[in-house]
Amino acid sequence: MAKVGIVGASGYTGAELLRLLAGHPDLEVAVATGDSQAGQPVADLYPSLVGAYGDRTFDTYDPAAVDGLDLVFCALPHGASQAVVPDLRDRVGAVVDLAADFRLADADLYPEWYGEAHTVPDLLAEAAYGLPELFRPDLLGATLVAGPGCYPTAAALALAPLLRAGLVAPTGIVVDAVSGVSGAGRPAKPTTTFCAADGDVTAYGLLRHRHTPEIEQTLTRVAGTAAQVVFTPHLVPMSRGMLATCYSRPVEGTTAADVAAAVADAYAEEAFVSVVPGSPSTKATQGSNAAHVAAHLDERTGWIVSLCALDNLGKGASGAAVQCANLALGLPEGTGLSTIGTYP
Amino acid sequence: MAKVGIVGASGYTGAELLRLLAGHPDLEVAVATGDSQAGQPVADLYPSLVGAYGDRTFDTYDPAAVDGLDLVFCALPHGASQAVVPDLRDRVGAVVDLAADFRLADADLYPEWYGEAHTVPDLLAEAAYGLPELFRPDLLGATLVAGPGCYPTAAALALAPLLRAGLVAPTGIVVDAVSGVSGAGRPAKPTTTFCAADGDVTAYGLLRHRHTPEIEQTLTRVAGTAAQVVFTPHLVPMSRGMLATCYSRPVEGTTAADVAAAVADAYAEEAFVSVVPGSPSTKATQGSNAAHVAAHLDERTGWIVSLCALDNLGKGASGAAVQCANLALGLPEGTGLSTIGTYP
Amino acid sequence: MAKVGIVGASGYTGAELLRLLAGHPDLEVAVATGDSQAGQPVADLYPSLVGAYGDRTFDTYDPAAVDGLDLVFCALPHGASQAVVPDLRDRVGAVVDLAADFRLADADLYPEWYGEAHTVPDLLAEAAYGLPELFRPDLLGATLVAGPGCYPTAAALALAPLLRAGLVAPTGIVVDAVSGVSGAGRPAKPTTTFCAADGDVTAYGLLRHRHTPEIEQTLTRVAGTAAQVVFTPHLVPMSRGMLATCYSRPVEGTTAADVAAAVADAYAEEAFVSVVPGSPSTKATQGSNAAHVAAHLDERTGWIVSLCALDNLGKGASGAAVQCANLALGLPEGTGLSTIGTYP
Amino acid sequence: MAKVGIVGASGYTGAELLRLLAGHPDLEVAVATGDSQAGQPVADLYPSLVGAYGDRTFDTYDPAAVDGLDLVFCALPHGASQAVVPDLRDRVGAVVDLAADFRLADADLYPEWYGEAHTVPDLLAEAAYGLPELFRPDLLGATLVAGPGCYPTAAALALAPLLRAGLVAPTGIVVDAVSGVSGAGRPAKPTTTFCAADGDVTAYGLLRHRHTPEIEQTLTRVAGTAAQVVFTPHLVPMSRGMLATCYSRPVEGTTAADVAAAVADAYAEEAFVSVVPGSPSTKATQGSNAAHVAAHLDERTGWIVSLCALDNLGKGASGAAVQCANLALGLPEGTGLSTIGTYP
Repeated sequence: MAKVGIVGASGYTGAELLRLLAGHPDLEVAVATGDSQAGQPVADLYPSLVGAYGDRTFDTYDPAAVDGLDLVFCALPHGASQAVVPDLRDRVGAVVDLAADFRLADADLYPEWYGEAHTVPDLLAEAAYGLPELFRPDLLGATLVAGPGCYPTAAALALAPLLRAGLVAPTGIVVDAVSGVSGAGRPAKPTTTFCAADGDVTAYGLLRHRHTPEIEQTLTRVAGTAAQVVFTPHLVPMSRGMLATCYSRPVEGTTAADVAAAVADAYAEEAFVSVVPGSPSTKATQGSNAAHVAAHLDERTGWIVSLCALDNLGKGASGAAVQCANLALGLPEGTGLSTIGTYP
Repeated sequence: MAKVGIVGASGYTGAELLRLLAGHPDLEVAVATGDSQAGQPVADLYPSLVGAYGDRTFDTYDPAAVDGLDLVFCALPHGASQAVVPDLRDRVGAVVDLAADFRLADADLYPEWYGEAHTVPDLLAEAAYGLPELFRPDLLGATLVAGPGCYPTAAALALAPLLRAGLVAPTGIVVDAVSGVSGAGRPAKPTTTFCAADGDVTAYGLLRHRHTPEIEQTLTRVAGTAAQVVFTPHLVPMSRGMLATCYSRPVEGTTAADVAAAVADAYAEEAFVSVVPGSPSTKATQGSNAAHVAAHLDERTGWIVSLCALDNLGKGASGAAVQCANLALGLPEGTGLSTIGTYP
Repeated sequence: MAKVGIVGASGYTGAELLRLLAGHPDLEVAVATGDSQAGQPVADLYPSLVGAYGDRTFDTYDPAAVDGLDLVFCALPHGASQAVVPDLRDRVGAVVDLAADFRLADADLYPEWYGEAHTVPDLLAEAAYGLPELFRPDLLGATLVAGPGCYPTAAALALAPLLRAGLVAPTGIVVDAVSGVSGAGRPAKPTTTFCAADGDVTAYGLLRHRHTPEIEQTLTRVAGTAAQVVFTPHLVPMSRGMLATCYSRPVEGTTAADVAAAVADAYAEEAFVSVVPGSPSTKATQGSNAAHVAAHLDERTGWIVSLCALDNLGKGASGAAVQCANLALGLPEGTGLSTIGTYP
Repeated sequence: MAKVGIVGASGYTGAELLRLLAGHPDLEVAVATGDSQAGQPVADLYPSLVGAYGDRTFDTYDPAAVDGLDLVFCALPHGASQAVVPDLRDRVGAVVDLAADFRLADADLYPEWYGEAHTVPDLLAEAAYGLPELFRPDLLGATLVAGPGCYPTAAALALAPLLRAGLVAPTGIVVDAVSGVSGAGRPAKPTTTFCAADGDVTAYGLLRHRHTPEIEQTLTRVAGTAAQVVFTPHLVPMSRGMLATCYSRPVEGTTAADVAAAVADAYAEEAFVSVVPGSPSTKATQGSNAAHVAAHLDERTGWIVSLCALDNLGKGASGAAVQCANLALGLPEGTGLSTIGTYP
């Protein structure tokens, strides 16, 4: 039984880690910190966790308390991980960070898209990007993992097989996506009250959403040449779930059979990715670590429409983090994770 | 007080007409038919209407009963209008059809997209397309109006100003849109139960949705050259509301100021279209006849992202039908209609 | 055209007043204050109002600015009205307060249920309680109206006919009710985020909800003897709507026909209350000023179950306030109000 | 690894059994029938199950196919189990029925509340009622288990400790409850479409809901004297979740401490029942087998308000069925079940 910590356990991704780890046979939560909620019972904030964490309170972060842990999940807001991770790496076996702090290999992208220079740019090269379906070898035994963003995971799973197979152009791509409201985090904001979000769909982060360079980085890596996307996220009235609908241009000669084969081959051995007919449905992945993918060639207009659905807190965040932790620690990759969500 | 009829009043667009007409100072509902619900009290099916239609039942359609009415709204399912409208036109002053039966000017598109030949193709040329913001002159005093589809209205309002001003290419356009569940109509279906739709987003009609040729027809008309779009509708968990997010390619030299001016100019005098900053929000139009539009040029990738939100039963159907009826009957265009929806 | 003001226009009841008054033929909004949002465009906070209030900003409250208005609506949080209303009454023709500040005739109930002594207890006797269906004569030409709470309105409309007819005991009554989330107001709180409220039902204010003494006051008044209720409100995942399910004990000899007659007679002449079979449905009243009522005698167990559905922002707040304003100003009671909500 | 069957696997309780059993370490699904969906891939109807049941189709029910199974779950509609269970009992080790067919010990109640005489009344005495928290000894090694109704489970968990401790009167009880829409089953109905249920709360089955005698049977059993309740269920806009708010009359001398102690003692050793402060929240139990309970004495009015939240498909149906199956088969009671739901 490996001992793990969660730094920033009081947010939604932290709470989802607590949920997943309560059912994980090989990992035990030794420490769960939440500075803004320190001292508060876990079950006060998350009554859903009362059966498994009835006696526990959120701890204040204390470096000594994590010393010697096998692995620590960092579920802090973006920017906060940079301050903690360098020290953490000296204390624990491995770190899986769920923020954006170690996702971009090019430090110059941080000031451009996140508004601030990276404080430990040298560490970026040491971080493995936590998308096992595309970059598994990097993750085996990794000591620093950057868990991908939810939108970048959905976009990458929908587009990477086509780019890897050379079937589509790497530029001119449109990624139009929707997310459930939990993607905006636990703190109450005017835009995420029930009354604001219920019955509403709206786009946000138009042209400038921070996940854009991360999507481009992954697509560039699989394409082997610079990829470019316009990305439009939308907020939709549901708690969990994400769907990316991606539009790319087939290269001359690409057939529907090529498209189908590229996707089928890419995921034939992947436990957490299913290729589905028609359109994937976000609800089919709710509460699980599954991603569902489909791709269609429109011969009439010369577009390929490829889609990916996942749970933004599952495969889009905490589920993926556990999957990566399993790989980092040498455990079977799917330990403690499920492909089956709650339905309905 | 003009006398009007509603044929097919028991569906959602029919019920919305009943709601709007109860508050219309110049139109009186003389006849409301609903063959599948004939004899049933209106208030049994729509308790929301009990205060205004407490004593009324849905009638069986009877040609004699509509004789001499000033105008009839046809809110029948697609295909059914073709059978009724030719006779209706001899009996009543004007017909506003809410189905797709008279939307496409080219009869050949019906077998291709709707699976059946049109039975009265000669009538197509006589129908005015009911989008006053683009084609108002055709609607003044019209005797046959084809009310536009909800998606085509949203896509046209987002894209037409750019095409008309010659700022974007008419092909290679992506229309990615979401709709509330009322767009699927009142009858219970496995895909529209609460448990299926709640918490779910899924695409449907991939590559082949019937509104595609209608979108292209309108864009072609305003561009003056053949337009082409790939169109992906999605179902989202809300009752009402529609958002179209449209991606088009600016022609060389187009600036952000050009884009802003094209949209502002197009709608400066339009009571029911507001240009908004950022992204429109479907909820801001809920229950009203308003459409909210925004447009943004992405210089980084060379795309224009333009969006339109509306209520699929309001400006997307019954509200637009009343607006057209006003024009057909020579009433002030906005009579009985509101720009303000219920919020929250 | 009478000139009115809204003090506290930036909250949900204020915004609903703005919506209703935009369509009111005899009232014009001369002033709309919102101290916390002063200077902000109305349409920034409520994009739904852009079509009618596109140029207006929320004002800071300035006594001089309201001088001479025919009527002012106070839509401030509880407690704030007491500080403003005494001065306001000298400046304007009439005041309709939507808070709890003038609802309870017995000043001693304020410290007990609201935690603070009333600062102008002498004014309580001058306030007319704004439930026209029960106390219409008090409201004709009133200069100070206390708009009722949403739960008290629903409970009173469900129970008053039975108590007035002497059919049920005035004690031992259970009022179990649900409310949409807008009842909690616009400001973001941890309990009213989308993620907290979606998919959740929970009771709140158990045994001590502030609307309890107001319910008892109204029932006592109609019963002519002290009434007592246990009241349990619940939050349910919808934006608007309220249902009160009330349990009372029939006095010896009460028959089902007595129950039906009492309810039917009470509301036979009421434009905004409909008696419905089975159970009322909150959605049937959404966006309107309607209340739907039903009552059933259970001979097996000796309980009467009576129910009332309404829109908490309509008949439960701003709709009722406009209805009372009409009465205060001598206008036809239903001017500018609708019995038809948006459906679906 | 015991082999089990699911008869009626295509409904929501059947699908939830498939989900739970996919993660159950000691039970293997050998047969899953769904006559109305026979031959259809499980993943077509439930894409959420594609990762675990990707190759399986629903079978037609064939008695020979279940021969020798260790246990069969019957998840058929009410009435259908009576026809199948007598034969099933000769073929398999144990039967856990999720319908109402074997819940009521008094056969005379079936014609009164279910409209039809029971066809195998002699079997009723052999069925153990599947509420382990109240009747565990009956379930150990049971060969026929009647899984309780969802409302009866919630009402019983909220009220039984008070009745067992003799703190409340067994009559005059009010059970006011809400359910998510999945309680109405998978088939599409006019009342359960998204557009009908979204934004709506309505009562149903007023005075005559079939779960009434089942609630009374359980309360009578624990009270030792005839219990009587008036029961009002409501439909609320969420997929899963149930809350029962129960009102009972304390006997002379009952104190708040007595109430708290009765509830705490009753569930101190129960893994799936947590006593919570304030009100339980349905969402805290979503997807789990947990029930959350609270109880409060109102000294002012002389009522005890006790509440129970659970997931109608979890502890209210399929979770409870697995819990009972574990007891019937001699497995640890909680095997394959979780107290933690998905949140948010």
